[in-house]
Amino acid sequence: MRIGLLGTGMVGQTLGRKLVSLDHEVRMGSRQAGNEKAVAWVETAGVGASEGSFADAAEFGELVINATGGSVTMDVLAAAGVHNLAGKVLVDVSNPLDASGGMPPILSVSNTDSVGEQIQRAYPDVKVVKTLNTVNCEVMVTPSLAGESHTMFLCGNDDGAKAEVRRLLESFGWPPSDLLDLGDISSARGMEMYVTLWVRLWMATGTGHLNVKLVTGP
Amino acid sequence: MRIGLLGTGMVGQTLGRKLVSLDHEVRMGSRQAGNEKAVAWVETAGVGASEGSFADAAEFGELVINATGGSVTMDVLAAAGVHNLAGKVLVDVSNPLDASGGMPPILSVSNTDSVGEQIQRAYPDVKVVKTLNTVNCEVMVTPSLAGESHTMFLCGNDDGAKAEVRRLLESFGWPPSDLLDLGDISSARGMEMYVTLWVRLWMATGTGHLNVKLVTGP
Repeated sequence: MRIGLLGTGMVGQTLGRKLVSLDHEVRMGSRQAGNEKAVAWVETAGVGASEGSFADAAEFGELVINATGGSVTMDVLAAAGVHNLAGKVLVDVSNPLDASGGMPPILSVSNTDSVGEQIQRAYPDVKVVKTLNTVNCEVMVTPSLAGESHTMFLCGNDDGAKAEVRRLLESFGWPPSDLLDLGDISSARGMEMYVTLWVRLWMATGTGHLNVKLVTGP
Repeated sequence: MRIGLLGTGMVGQTLGRKLVSLDHEVRMGSRQAGNEKAVAWVETAGVGASEGSFADAAEFGELVINATGGSVTMDVLAAAGVHNLAGKVLVDVSNPLDASGGMPPILSVSNTDSVGEQIQRAYPDVKVVKTLNTVNCEVMVTPSLAGESHTMFLCGNDDGAKAEVRRLLESFGWPPSDLLDLGDISSARGMEMYVTLWVRLWMATGTGHLNVKLVTGP
């Protein structure tokens, strides 16, 4: 599949490398084509990797992944262009972390709203699926790094889009039984707010190779 | 031990009943001594159960448990009286849920603050330990209801107080290996914000007998 990947940070690079290894064509987007990190990523990611502006990447992708920081996501999507996103599945893996006041970070949007909801409101014909934001990027693409079985949440308003994203997650190594659909995009709020606990779990355990597994009684 | 229990709701009643069954003396506190729910609870909870005002309960307790809603906790503690709380361990199991705008609820404090931190700031010589707020009250006192092994977080500034609360949790049936100390009271923020995800897990699974288990890689 042709995938447009917005963001050149660790998350974008790691997701992009995995997607290329799975034989997808991936175009990494940044503010300006020729971005140093994007060019370096293309050189090592393998056949099928390319780079360009946010608009180039969004136009290229049959599916688009937002791997930018949640605090800048709305600006990035504006740069990507509404016509380049129209009707597409947009996988939002972002968190609105704001560490400008020091560590641990706070969230730039929370409680009464979320990045996932902001995107869906601003782009009503885009099929936003929130997922993967609750683990670090290494665990995103190699779930076994955090153990045999643990839970990946997803949510969004479009069942077909969620089914497509499930298949993508399964191709990353997530067992179907570990994927939990939390319903419509308003669940992005809880998924993003959880990340404040994730940071504490990371501080307490000293590893980013962590996740939680949902358990329920009989 | 003599325990002062603030709150007459489901959480207070369930915790109180368990504590009495473990041979603690429990005084349930409410706005006014003689509260109908508190009196009914005393009649069925067993030997060792009593009731009174918030101040009566706080004065009575060698250890105090806040089982009131997080949005009213600061008012409740003011009614309990600073002199009745001074120097004591206060176990805060509250969540600042605000469903006044409908379901799912939002939080009345979050992101840059938490109920646990509010209490600790207002009562610096009280040893606040945040715990149990991440599961429903039945799971609090019978952890096996949510499965064999899952994680209970706790945090607070005083190591001695946390050790005492660990013993209490173990007496409820929490295995020591499932208790995770997240550090100082500022971790209450993440623990309280997680509850917005808990609500979605409850909606998705249809059971309150749920929890998460922390897993980490090798």
